[in-house]
Amino acid sequence: MTTNSALTFDLAAYLKDRALEVDRAMETFLPAEADYMGNLGEAMRYGVFPGGKRFRPVLALAAAEALGADRALAMPAACAFELVHCFSLVHDDMPCMDNDVERRGKPTCHVAFGEDVALLAGDGLVIHAFEVAAATAALAGAEVAVRVVGELARAAGHPGMVGGQILDMHAQRHGVDRAGLLAIHQAKTGALIRGAVRAGALVGRASEAQLEALTGFGERVGLVFQITDDILDAGVDPDPISFPALFGMDKSRRMALEATEEAIDLLRPFGQSAQPLVHLASYLLDRSV
Amino acid sequence: MTTNSALTFDLAAYLKDRALEVDRAMETFLPAEADYMGNLGEAMRYGVFPGGKRFRPVLALAAAEALGADRALAMPAACAFELVHCFSLVHDDMPCMDNDVERRGKPTCHVAFGEDVALLAGDGLVIHAFEVAAATAALAGAEVAVRVVGELARAAGHPGMVGGQILDMHAQRHGVDRAGLLAIHQAKTGALIRGAVRAGALVGRASEAQLEALTGFGERVGLVFQITDDILDAGVDPDPISFPALFGMDKSRRMALEATEEAIDLLRPFGQSAQPLVHLASYLLDRSV
Repeated sequence: MTTNSALTFDLAAYLKDRALEVDRAMETFLPAEADYMGNLGEAMRYGVFPGGKRFRPVLALAAAEALGADRALAMPAACAFELVHCFSLVHDDMPCMDNDVERRGKPTCHVAFGEDVALLAGDGLVIHAFEVAAATAALAGAEVAVRVVGELARAAGHPGMVGGQILDMHAQRHGVDRAGLLAIHQAKTGALIRGAVRAGALVGRASEAQLEALTGFGERVGLVFQITDDILDAGVDPDPISFPALFGMDKSRRMALEATEEAIDLLRPFGQSAQPLVHLASYLLDRSV
Repeated sequence: MTTNSALTFDLAAYLKDRALEVDRAMETFLPAEADYMGNLGEAMRYGVFPGGKRFRPVLALAAAEALGADRALAMPAACAFELVHCFSLVHDDMPCMDNDVERRGKPTCHVAFGEDVALLAGDGLVIHAFEVAAATAALAGAEVAVRVVGELARAAGHPGMVGGQILDMHAQRHGVDRAGLLAIHQAKTGALIRGAVRAGALVGRASEAQLEALTGFGERVGLVFQITDDILDAGVDPDPISFPALFGMDKSRRMALEATEEAIDLLRPFGQSAQPLVHLASYLLDRSV
């Protein structure tokens, strides 16, 4: 752990509590009837529940709180980013992509519902994310909502996650150098994490300087997330397009540590209200050491 | 033709001119480099150009003009609806859906680029549509932009087009009655056409009464669009889930005529500025008689 206050902050309880809060909100944002439009509602919910750590929305809420805002104001923005994350998993698992048959201990969406329904459930989730993002207007005003929508689109779409997936596919076929690997992950996983932090910051009415600091935090946390993911996978399912493969294990660990220190340093001006963000960053680093 | 002024209005020239205007705008809204993010930019453009009649964006622009607004203000909203239409064609053509290999005389996106790239190009287009919709803010204010984003999400997503596709799939397998057919098309094709008209109306700062009238117009025009599509297909590729199959040819034609008359009647309060909408409605009806 990087800070002493870690002793007084129960991150496990915090994460559990926030994930539950996010799940409750997601529940209200999704189509109510399990049989909405045939089995589309059921398939969409299948892609969302049960969730993982809800890491992206928790970051968005914590960014708003770092600015002293009520985190409830950031809940639609937070959930919108999680819906995009869920959509990406449904489409990534499909036969024409990773062809995965199991995720989090249950059959993937296309195995459970068929490819056609999974394709449409993914489409439904990503489209709905934007209606949820737009709901920010009722809580934080239309100006902020429009910025959140733009943030989500750029983080999720061709300049971000979707573009990163294409780059990753090319790299798997043709190989990649270190700069290329960094570019892939900046887009593929980094953009959505960075975007979630920025969305929370926008709802918290960050100044330009605050937004810049939190953006830097989000970028570094996104990098650490990917490096530690790759380190954890290295023992189980080593990927030639990964940080340990291209930088070596020691250098990868050092990069993650440095990025975490920089991330935490950027939070200094926010004081005590940024403690959850500090601990989230430390937690990401710790899971690989 | 339903009105005398048809004699003085050159619809063919109007449609050509507006489609060109939309194409020029779409050009600026899409990633500039053909090789953006591997071949993702190329695949996204492939799904957008060359286009068809650009019917949805032309309706959005004409709705704004019916309210006396500068149609340039409605261009981002109009293009956002067209991007969603293009996305839906890319995903619909995929092997797990209709498995079509040709569209508008060229190989479909997944044939040209592979299934994985087509899936991501569709995802990229639908996500980008929301950034383009949000760009309405700079021209018509954030309040209007937020409403346009919500309109687009509901028209495109599970309550609209995506939901309608699921209903259609179920109907193809299990059959459907007349009410079911109407529900399918209201969602599958109607919602996006209705939404495009409403988006144009919102940018044109429609009053509640004007928005209601234009919504009614959009609903009827969407219905006519589908009925006449089904009538045109009946000779070539008859579908058991179609208006001629379930209502008979005569009744289908009568429904289209009545809906067109109602649509045009709803435009009466808008006077001369609604002439393009009147002619667009007549044109849709005429293509099947």
